[in-house]
Amino acid sequence: MPKIEVCLSPELVHLHDLKNKIVVVVDIFRATSTMITGLANKVSSITPVAGLEACRNMKSKGYIIAGERNGQTAEGFELGNSPLSYLNNAYAGKKIAVTTTNGTLTIEKSKKDAAEVLIGAFLNLQATADYLIQQGKDVVIHCAGWKGMFNLEDSLYAGALVSVLANEFDFDCDGAIGMKALFEQNQGDLKSFLSQASHAKRLQNHNIDADIDFCLTLDKYNFVGKLEGEELVKVSLNKVV
Amino acid sequence: MPKIEVCLSPELVHLHDLKNKIVVVVDIFRATSTMITGLANKVSSITPVAGLEACRNMKSKGYIIAGERNGQTAEGFELGNSPLSYLNNAYAGKKIAVTTTNGTLTIEKSKKDAAEVLIGAFLNLQATADYLIQQGKDVVIHCAGWKGMFNLEDSLYAGALVSVLANEFDFDCDGAIGMKALFEQNQGDLKSFLSQASHAKRLQNHNIDADIDFCLTLDKYNFVGKLEGEELVKVSLNKVV
Repeated sequence: MPKIEVCLSPELVHLHDLKNKIVVVVDIFRATSTMITGLANKVSSITPVAGLEACRNMKSKGYIIAGERNGQTAEGFELGNSPLSYLNNAYAGKKIAVTTTNGTLTIEKSKKDAAEVLIGAFLNLQATADYLIQQGKDVVIHCAGWKGMFNLEDSLYAGALVSVLANEFDFDCDGAIGMKALFEQNQGDLKSFLSQASHAKRLQNHNIDADIDFCLTLDKYNFVGKLEGEELVKVSLNKVV
Repeated sequence: MPKIEVCLSPELVHLHDLKNKIVVVVDIFRATSTMITGLANKVSSITPVAGLEACRNMKSKGYIIAGERNGQTAEGFELGNSPLSYLNNAYAGKKIAVTTTNGTLTIEKSKKDAAEVLIGAFLNLQATADYLIQQGKDVVIHCAGWKGMFNLEDSLYAGALVSVLANEFDFDCDGAIGMKALFEQNQGDLKSFLSQASHAKRLQNHNIDADIDFCLTLDKYNFVGKLEGEELVKVSLNKVV
């Protein structure tokens, strides 16, 4: 049986061996939720870029640039980090380059060694789980956290994914056991549980409560977000019975 | 109101500012539980030492040396890391030098900047909480984890301490919020919940199930374990009404 591990912060990823494994990067509020929403709304591609300057330079290459630092749109960027911006195919056919406080760094730290990098969100939880079952490889769920620290929303997503995969994967990892229990014990009222969280409070202060609701929507989309080279692409999957 | 934070691994401690704060180091299985038990059983002092060699060298200075690596007594050491060894005042009046896989390193990483370093265990949870309320300083609970990774038992202790202190301290820290919920939702059957944990399994493999039961005993002792210089000492406290 393949194994599943949870890495609670990019500052701990050196403790995990990513070789031959599928890494699922998650930054629920909001990078990976936004990327999945962009892909669902027919952007042509999304290129995650770790640094602000490098991302800004993509503009001259024909990209729409999206940049967020500390929860707000970074100076000189066309788009911030709200999934709602991409709804109604608003950027259909466009190439997007994106940099965020935590999410893009976590992708960067995952891609060197992993066999595959996926991006995870509640928006496509079941599709990601189905894909992982189909592939049958070992999995590391890599939480972006907040500036290196544990955060609640990414850890709860990790717990949710472990919970869905529990019959098909082994998990001898305390992060997986702990977060699975935390998710299962709070899934009935995830939003109210998360409203205590520091990052949710931060977002509320920015008047983007609607983003929180959207990012916590379960299984709105039925595809997987996968890194191919430098670009995230949409992978549809055959229905798993 | 003073603040409480949880640091889930010594690999994340650089993200926390320890200055002017009381750091509570916890390594439930078994370093800090064993230290509290030693102090309760009248050892003259306990000196935590991060390195195996440095600890071994303490023998010639009149110390009883206790050494554990990967859950087992290290070669050439008189004592391992079982709290039961110290019961019935077995080492009363002796000076102990101790090194363990995770706990002593975590103490080492805490003591440079912190105002005070305490060692935490379920065995004296309420006494530690009472002391922290008396002092009124900001607190960081520093989990030893397992070789840098998150572990369940130390994180649950952190959650337990946050839970006891919740009315007297602010906590705007996802680690504190998450672990408090995890503890409160599983406190009715902590042992069975922890039996899934990787470290508990490891201990069971070593036939030291009795150690687990002992380390999960709540409030057996009514004093605080505190680092004074290089030594851990027992601090009794005035009863808090």
